[in-house]
Formats: sequence, structure tokens, C-alpha cells
Amino acid sequence: MARVVVDVMLKPEILDPQGQAVQRALPRLGFEGVSDVRQGKRFELEVDGPVDDAALTRIRELAESFLANTVIEDFTVKVEDEKVEAGK
Amino acid sequence: MARVVVDVMLKPEILDPQGQAVQRALPRLGFEGVSDVRQGKRFELEVDGPVDDAALTRIRELAESFLANTVIEDFTVKVEDEKVEAGK
Repeated sequence: MARVVVDVMLKPEILDPQGQAVQRALPRLGFEGVSDVRQGKRFELEVDGPVDDAALTRIRELAESFLANTVIEDFTVKVEDEKVEAGK
Repeated sequence: MARVVVDVMLKPEILDPQGQAVQRALPRLGFEGVSDVRQGKRFELEVDGPVDDAALTRIRELAESFLANTVIEDFTVKVEDEKVEAGK
């Protein structure tokens, strides 16, 4: 049992109105110094069995076919190990 | 200039219909072996200046106040270093 994370973000050249809305709201809310915000999706998949190369290849196919629209989105697949900074 | 990533996920005890819909669709689509899927949001913030402890504290406040609904969502803040597995 392992957790695999698929992050799906709009490609850099695609306009991101959600992220822009957040970025423009921040100074009004008292947070300066954030020059850009992009908003995307994060999928956490609990995978049965070992996550070997074959499993990762399958998950990349899955992400490419169903989780991301690769015309406008990029995705990354990673096996989750540790969190660098934990919120609450 | 550094990139800080805020991941916002529903708390484990909160039902996630989007993730469930994805998880249930996978066997139909030929992908077995994924026992759970959770879907959340990923924010990529481009921060001006160095990301020191003060900046991270500020970003955690920002995430807690505006990016996450901490009644139903957890968030993590991390400074992005490297991608373990890159898709396309």
C-alpha cells in the first residue's frame, strides 16, 4: 500500500483566472510579495501492492488519459515520502 | 524569487465525492489496484525575495485564512525543490 500523488497544473502558457484572482486579492488582504499564483489539482491515489516501475508507468498512463487534459495541462507523478512543512 | 506550494486536501474524515467518482471509474477504464482517491487543490505561489522562516509563517497564515477552509480541509506548505517523477 503506497500513496502516489498526481499533480495537475495548467500549462504555463495557459491563462489561469482562478490563480490570478487569488494573486490579485492578496495585497488587499495584507499579503504583499507574491508575484504569481497558479491553481491546480492534486490527486492522492492509494495504490495496492508495491509501486514499482510497472505500476508507475500504469499510473502515468492513467494520469495522462483521465486525470489531466494534456492539451492544456501538465502533470507530475510522484511517490509520496515525507512532507517538508506540515500545516494543521 | 522562490516557489512555495500550498496543498489543500479535504480532511480524512470528510467525504470526497470527486475522489470517489474517480476511484470508481478506474476499474471500468482498465486500471485496477487503486483502493482510494482523494482530490484536492494545489496552489503554486511565486514569492519575491528569500523564503525564510518569517516568509513561511506569513504564507501559512495566508493559506490558513484564504486558501483552505480549515473546518473541512488540511493544508501543507512546502518550498518546492525537485520533482521526483516528471510527467510531460
